[in-house]
Amino acid sequence: MKKLIVILALLVSVYGFSVNSGQTIKVGNTKDITEDATPYVLKQLKENKGAKTIEFEKGTYHFYPDKGLNKFVYLSNHKDVFVSLAFPVENYKDFTIDGQGSTFIFHGKMIPFLVDDSENITIKNVKIDWAMSFHSEGEIIAHHKEEHAFDVRFGEEYPYDIRNEQIYFIKEYYEHDLGQTILYDKERRAISYNNKKTSPISTYQKSTTQYGTDQIKYKYKVDKADLTLRKVGTESRLKVNEVEPGVVRFFNHKKGLPPIGNILSTKGQQGENRVAPGIRVSNSKSFFLENVTIHHAGGMGLLVENSEDIFIDKLTISPSGDRMVSTTADATHFVGCRGQIKMTNSLLENQLDDCINIHGAYQEVVEQLADNKLGIRMGHHQQEGFVIGRKGDTIGFVKIDESFTPFHQLTIASIEVINQRYQVITFEEKIPAAVVQGDYIENLSAYPEVILTNNKFQGNRARGVLLSTPKKALVKDNYFHSEMDAIFLPVESSKWYESGAQSNLIIEGNTFDNCNFGGTSRGIIRLVTDEDNESIAFHNITIRNNTFKLFDNLVLEVSNTDGLVFENNKILSTNTFPQLYPENPAYIIKSSKNVVFKNNDFQGKATKMMECDESAVNVDFQ
Amino acid sequence: MKKLIVILALLVSVYGFSVNSGQTIKVGNTKDITEDATPYVLKQLKENKGAKTIEFEKGTYHFYPDKGLNKFVYLSNHKDVFVSLAFPVENYKDFTIDGQGSTFIFHGKMIPFLVDDSENITIKNVKIDWAMSFHSEGEIIAHHKEEHAFDVRFGEEYPYDIRNEQIYFIKEYYEHDLGQTILYDKERRAISYNNKKTSPISTYQKSTTQYGTDQIKYKYKVDKADLTLRKVGTESRLKVNEVEPGVVRFFNHKKGLPPIGNILSTKGQQGENRVAPGIRVSNSKSFFLENVTIHHAGGMGLLVENSEDIFIDKLTISPSGDRMVSTTADATHFVGCRGQIKMTNSLLENQLDDCINIHGAYQEVVEQLADNKLGIRMGHHQQEGFVIGRKGDTIGFVKIDESFTPFHQLTIASIEVINQRYQVITFEEKIPAAVVQGDYIENLSAYPEVILTNNKFQGNRARGVLLSTPKKALVKDNYFHSEMDAIFLPVESSKWYESGAQSNLIIEGNTFDNCNFGGTSRGIIRLVTDEDNESIAFHNITIRNNTFKLFDNLVLEVSNTDGLVFENNKILSTNTFPQLYPENPAYIIKSSKNVVFKNNDFQGKATKMMECDESAVNVDFQ
Repeated sequence: MKKLIVILALLVSVYGFSVNSGQTIKVGNTKDITEDATPYVLKQLKENKGAKTIEFEKGTYHFYPDKGLNKFVYLSNHKDVFVSLAFPVENYKDFTIDGQGSTFIFHGKMIPFLVDDSENITIKNVKIDWAMSFHSEGEIIAHHKEEHAFDVRFGEEYPYDIRNEQIYFIKEYYEHDLGQTILYDKERRAISYNNKKTSPISTYQKSTTQYGTDQIKYKYKVDKADLTLRKVGTESRLKVNEVEPGVVRFFNHKKGLPPIGNILSTKGQQGENRVAPGIRVSNSKSFFLENVTIHHAGGMGLLVENSEDIFIDKLTISPSGDRMVSTTADATHFVGCRGQIKMTNSLLENQLDDCINIHGAYQEVVEQLADNKLGIRMGHHQQEGFVIGRKGDTIGFVKIDESFTPFHQLTIASIEVINQRYQVITFEEKIPAAVVQGDYIENLSAYPEVILTNNKFQGNRARGVLLSTPKKALVKDNYFHSEMDAIFLPVESSKWYESGAQSNLIIEGNTFDNCNFGGTSRGIIRLVTDEDNESIAFHNITIRNNTFKLFDNLVLEVSNTDGLVFENNKILSTNTFPQLYPENPAYIIKSSKNVVFKNNDFQGKATKMMECDESAVNVDFQ
Repeated sequence: MKKLIVILALLVSVYGFSVNSGQTIKVGNTKDITEDATPYVLKQLKENKGAKTIEFEKGTYHFYPDKGLNKFVYLSNHKDVFVSLAFPVENYKDFTIDGQGSTFIFHGKMIPFLVDDSENITIKNVKIDWAMSFHSEGEIIAHHKEEHAFDVRFGEEYPYDIRNEQIYFIKEYYEHDLGQTILYDKERRAISYNNKKTSPISTYQKSTTQYGTDQIKYKYKVDKADLTLRKVGTESRLKVNEVEPGVVRFFNHKKGLPPIGNILSTKGQQGENRVAPGIRVSNSKSFFLENVTIHHAGGMGLLVENSEDIFIDKLTISPSGDRMVSTTADATHFVGCRGQIKMTNSLLENQLDDCINIHGAYQEVVEQLADNKLGIRMGHHQQEGFVIGRKGDTIGFVKIDESFTPFHQLTIASIEVINQRYQVITFEEKIPAAVVQGDYIENLSAYPEVILTNNKFQGNRARGVLLSTPKKALVKDNYFHSEMDAIFLPVESSKWYESGAQSNLIIEGNTFDNCNFGGTSRGIIRLVTDEDNESIAFHNITIRNNTFKLFDNLVLEVSNTDGLVFENNKILSTNTFPQLYPENPAYIIKSSKNVVFKNNDFQGKATKMMECDESAVNVDFQ
């Protein structure tokens, strides 16, 4: 009975607090609120629908899922999940969340900020972190060469359970197995040099015994990467045992033994391990992120889908405390956005995937249902639930094996979502006979202009910036120190169904500081499609006045490009890392035309300047 | 290009078919439709909202999920899942689905019929089956006593994949591991006699190595049976290897070796293995099920929640072909229903859980939020999303350790669902001081009257009929041949949070044919609560004119009962099975009063007639 009396006493402060001064909800830094701010914030938002601002007195606020608003969300490039919310910003207009320097600590599978169907929303002056991370870290402390085994010490913040010689890391309301791993260099606080030699550690192998599984007949096309189907025919390769509390020995790793002193990060299986992005914005217009720090997220830091005009200033993605890892997937990711995406004065570091990825989404034609009606299918399981456009948008039809350029365009009249994979689009016009099953569609109205200036991208796994928009883009005065390529213009059509061939891009005044240190043989800037054809994907690319500091040779890889100018760049040689690919040239050009190199100051190590295939036309090297 | 032309040609028949004759949608038995009726049926239902009937020309219709309507559903006593639908009967009034003798074959995670928020709905003359079952079956073919191993042969309809010495059964869009198992007797086509001696096979054991997992602090009460938390500290005990294609050897089973010739059924882990019930009815009034056969379902056959007046006639739950197992959970299950539940002339057999379970749901008081507002919590993870009642319903407050009788009643004004576990109830009246954290609530308005006559319950795992309603109930002229108790009146408060103490029950004219053959020491009829207190749960129970055929001793177990008459029953002895518990009495009476036995014809084996504890008062044995 005492317990309830205490709670009743708290009601006076929690529920009696005077919160609404005009249009502003003020949240006080009092223990009743900070210990679990979720129910309080939810109640305030619900009871003050007209409020324009929610302001937090500076402090540290905890958010638990137990009394959070429950919502199922389809998340692009994440697992589709039930999450718990404290800030459901849905159908809001002109609304600001101002942390005033506060830190918000989340517990379990929550999305800190979910913005949907809203306009002119600002989130500012707040730091986001999680009490327990969605990944785990341990230090490589010993090698046992005769057994090809190594020992890892995990700190107290990474509890684990060993089951049938497999390790599972236990979190609040969550667990992950080993799954995807990579090594960090403790001293550099970045992904390790040449980590490809020893990581990822070999978690899976083919299982040897199947009975009748190939006899299962599917009526329709199946996605073998689907979370269920992908498991068939695979098993765990590694075996572990505990040497002493916190120290685990790993056996049966296929690659070299990871260096002693490196930090092994592990986040569980692909497809299962992205469940709680930091901020998710969808179907919204004019979103502002100002002076926000995301120390961690179980997925991407910022995920924006089908939205227009996104302005990011002073965003920091960086781990807290002793953690090596910030977010467990991309720092920021934009799908099907339009208008402008602008990022300035930001620091994105140490996350487990790319810094920025901006692209559209291909869908696949399944069948024609009427003369203006198509059944379409999401190609990738992590695109489930994605809706490609809205009434009035222009859809381009692409035969991806032949060309990246749409052969026909139609206008969306409506889209009916039947299920997460299958939707029906009705067009304003008749569908031409040339459209057949297997064609791809992309939304030509849903590509943004991009401005990225004065940002720092470093220490993370994978790439720096991925751009896939035919609209204007400017990448200026940024610093790059990425484990793989710094800037990648892809058409990731085959595996990820990511659409958009970048054109009209200026890369100017950036410093590329010893990128590609992870061990891959790649250009610092790459223009490369998934498809093995010679058609043009990229147009009008200018790369000028940049500084490339290189411990290795390869500066630029170009393919499927018409119109590239590489001028006034400085290429410097460093000894920051031992060279990995001395046989590489400085530039590789394939299936491209109208490529001009001029006025570059080349002081690199490469002895062979350029590798050019016979399909490259009109390459001018001055 | 050919493919699309074919599809366009089909459009004429699929989409041009004249379906709507007045108020009836007529579905023709044509190949274009039967090969995947899902998109056709969905389109017809959508385009003919006013239709009163959908009639199928007799035939076999397949339903695939690929173009099915996608819906997330909270399912009581199932996993909460995304399923695919062909028949979303939501917000319908006066609507009939008539299969006219057709068979509907489902593929993957679908719910054949989902009825929600509807009134006067009839489903009739249809057989439901799945192309691939959600469970698997194999025959025990050899013992290897020196290794305490046994071999199981799985037929081609049960493909598997062995990973790290564990077996996974692969289905269309689904897989299951060994998990919950039980043995069937092939000749009797029923659960095996005394199967408890050798099954379930020992799939799990404690894992030995945990590091820091007990240091994880949860702010709020957690459910250790939650699908994530339950895994911590457990691992697979069994190991398997393939002897020859289709034949798998099982090692490390703890119990006796299962008899050669028995059929081992396996359905995967508890909590994960109920994903596709046959028919789900919720928030509806007047539901009629007539002449329907459910050969299989990945969960319960019929699940009804929060509904009123359910009439079932000629329902058959029975496996198809050579399968031993029909549905993988209860044949029928009713939660929070009111009005009347009537089942007549039905056959429920061979499913992997009870035949009928009718109960309410306890929720737990978390905190008081205002003088008329309570935060409540779902106790069991399979109750997630359940809403306890509606405006005007009477909620009873129970201190379950002390008494099953509510100490106070309040009226619901509204319920706000915050998340799957946590809801806020506002009452019409003030909440008395006696209500404290941890009290249970039950909905006193949501208990049904029950009539079960002329049904056959046999061959399944677990119990026959479970009744938990204080309203009138009649169980008359039924046949029972259940592996455990035939009729069970529980208050399953502690593990399952199932509410309702049965009163006013007449059990009359039934035949209990050698029930309890599975190996448990239980009464054929049992009145037993989860709580170890002496307060009265059950009132006014009459058991008369029944025939008990017994290979063992125990007829009746009674506890926590006030008012039981056992009269004019015939107790016969059989040699159908060897006796298991010769020391048992015929009757056990505990913590009960006003119990009368009279005019019974006892020809049983028991040498001791009655076991009665000191708390039993006024037991009259004539």
